[in-house]
Amino acid sequence: MAIIVQKYGGTSVGNVDRIKNVAAKIKSFWDKGDKVAVVVSARSGVTNELIARAKSVCQNPDDREMDMILATGEQETIALTAMALHAIGVPAVSRTGAQAGIVTNSLHSRARIAKLTGGDIVERLNEGKVVVVAGFQGISSENEITTLGRGGSDLTAIALAAAINADLCQIYTDVDGVYSADPRIVLNARKLQRICYEEMLELASSGSKVMQSRSVEFAQKYGVPFEVRSSFNDKPGTIVKALEKTMEDAVVAGVALDRTQTRVTVGDLPDTPEAFSAIFNALGEFAVSVDMIIKNVGKAGAANLTFSVNTDQVARAEKVINDVLKKIGSGTFRSSGEIAKVSIVGVGMTSHPGVAGTLFAALAKAGINSELITTSEIKISVGIEPAKADEAVRAIHAAFGLDAPAAK
Amino acid sequence: MAIIVQKYGGTSVGNVDRIKNVAAKIKSFWDKGDKVAVVVSARSGVTNELIARAKSVCQNPDDREMDMILATGEQETIALTAMALHAIGVPAVSRTGAQAGIVTNSLHSRARIAKLTGGDIVERLNEGKVVVVAGFQGISSENEITTLGRGGSDLTAIALAAAINADLCQIYTDVDGVYSADPRIVLNARKLQRICYEEMLELASSGSKVMQSRSVEFAQKYGVPFEVRSSFNDKPGTIVKALEKTMEDAVVAGVALDRTQTRVTVGDLPDTPEAFSAIFNALGEFAVSVDMIIKNVGKAGAANLTFSVNTDQVARAEKVINDVLKKIGSGTFRSSGEIAKVSIVGVGMTSHPGVAGTLFAALAKAGINSELITTSEIKISVGIEPAKADEAVRAIHAAFGLDAPAAK
Repeated sequence: MAIIVQKYGGTSVGNVDRIKNVAAKIKSFWDKGDKVAVVVSARSGVTNELIARAKSVCQNPDDREMDMILATGEQETIALTAMALHAIGVPAVSRTGAQAGIVTNSLHSRARIAKLTGGDIVERLNEGKVVVVAGFQGISSENEITTLGRGGSDLTAIALAAAINADLCQIYTDVDGVYSADPRIVLNARKLQRICYEEMLELASSGSKVMQSRSVEFAQKYGVPFEVRSSFNDKPGTIVKALEKTMEDAVVAGVALDRTQTRVTVGDLPDTPEAFSAIFNALGEFAVSVDMIIKNVGKAGAANLTFSVNTDQVARAEKVINDVLKKIGSGTFRSSGEIAKVSIVGVGMTSHPGVAGTLFAALAKAGINSELITTSEIKISVGIEPAKADEAVRAIHAAFGLDAPAAK
Repeated sequence: MAIIVQKYGGTSVGNVDRIKNVAAKIKSFWDKGDKVAVVVSARSGVTNELIARAKSVCQNPDDREMDMILATGEQETIALTAMALHAIGVPAVSRTGAQAGIVTNSLHSRARIAKLTGGDIVERLNEGKVVVVAGFQGISSENEITTLGRGGSDLTAIALAAAINADLCQIYTDVDGVYSADPRIVLNARKLQRICYEEMLELASSGSKVMQSRSVEFAQKYGVPFEVRSSFNDKPGTIVKALEKTMEDAVVAGVALDRTQTRVTVGDLPDTPEAFSAIFNALGEFAVSVDMIIKNVGKAGAANLTFSVNTDQVARAEKVINDVLKKIGSGTFRSSGEIAKVSIVGVGMTSHPGVAGTLFAALAKAGINSELITTSEIKISVGIEPAKADEAVRAIHAAFGLDAPAAK
């Protein structure tokens, strides 16, 4: 008998049959006497459909009205899920974000959770009811319907688990868990039994699409352990929790690949801290994330800065940088094509020297040149030619002994 | 410059183009400086779609969860309408039933409005904004989303008009107004310029489908004049308001036809007031509406009661009556087929004798036998064979001089 929060994403509740499947899964826990609160997303496709309809009446729909319309997606799913539970004899009741006391700030389309009271959820759970909560949405103190932005339903689940002091938070999704590498690239990638928040964060920000960083950060901040697992089978997934001593045995937990980066170069800069700080401050101010920075000083004291930015932020980066260069009075902006970022992640790295050596030896053996490099305490990333990315991931994965033992 | 409440039904906002059309119509009032609050329904078809989806996960969906899912229909439309207004430069903001302060009792699927505060609508109107309110829905004092049942959006509009003291309430629909008869039956039926609440009520309850009685009753109770008009053209519609002296000039306002009645007979009853009251009390208790009652006393003191009930209530009536007959110890129930109810309606009837004479003369001339008859102060209804209904309506319409003058 545990208090469990389960989150089912849009694919898991994508149609009527899948909703029934989710209801059956919930029932299997409820039958054991667990108290189950469920967070669901909009059915997959519904959000895009609503956005398309909104854009067909107004080219740039207002964020507030957009939230108003998008919130209907989850409101439909909570009702359907509660009904599907009723149909198999499980008492259940649905709650909108507002009814669940998910209070946010007023930033429409990307609201932050200010407070999560849970409303009457604990009372309903104690009555033996399953409570089905709308993910992704909340209510501001001005009584406005807000949405939490990308990954919002995961965030709802983790915040709810913290608020009702759940024993377990299960994030059901369309993958089995977090793998040592993308199984589509590395056929014998291993499902990780457990990793710590820091590793999950680095894997997420390095291109592993399982969860958004903000949800992991929220879980870390409030010490909410959670499990990433599949809604389509009953296999245990990956537990993500605070670092424990035994976790350090594995030097490298996984290899991540991010194909969304583009390399840009700012050339002919004065080689002064003021020039660099002007550029990076401006990028930060306009929310352009920068990674893998290299500086070269050329002839006559002029410097070149090369770094990677998200491909969809290149246009913004160009505008921001050109504005700065105009003020500085010199310098050129150049974007030189997409770059793949391959990262190894593991909390064990800090105490195991030689990790970088193994990485670069693997790349050298495969004849792959790394054009940019960046490191953190638990991560080393290299920027390489996109065409060689898969090969690099496989080589590195093997070099660190991450390949799963062959099935007997 | 007036304060106007406009209500657009599901057909009027049925798709993106129609929503744009509605926005343009709203703008034409806003441009003149009117303060416009708009009530919209779900897009036509959406409610049925949601009901079908609900029934595919649960045969008998819970009323509360049904309200939860149905309320999304209008929530979508209010956002789209506000966006469509933004697109043509009209400041607008949407309000759910809860945000508009539409407080109802807790009877899910058929809630009654307990209080309508209007929320901040008057402030927003005074700022020059159009406020778009979700029809059909409210919130109970327990913070539960409720729906008002059939005709709920009309009721929202009329209650809102009362709450914000509007000068005018316009019910936009897919017909031009209230006609002296169904124009599909009587080609030269006249659009009525204005009628009183009582006439509108009798026309509604006698099968004119323009509005539900409850909305007209609410308007009458709070003295809200309203106009029924088309959202597809700019013609003035029919004004419905309290009785005025001049209205009595017209003896008969219109002819209504109701094809939803079935004639039932309870035979071999003891001819006692107790027996009749047992039957009608039981029918009333189970919400079976009864109309056009005739009593015949046969041989040996046994009585036959014949009356009409709504065709979709026949099964319930049969069950209720058989239970009563079992207690009485005698009597038989028999349903003898559908019957068409043709009614003439008009406040002028009370002061103009001879109306019934004209009616029956018209029927006689057309060779149509009336099988059941009922009268009220402002209405006479006859039950006739359904195959002759259209002919009867045309004959009566002509007999009372209601045909519009031929176009020149």
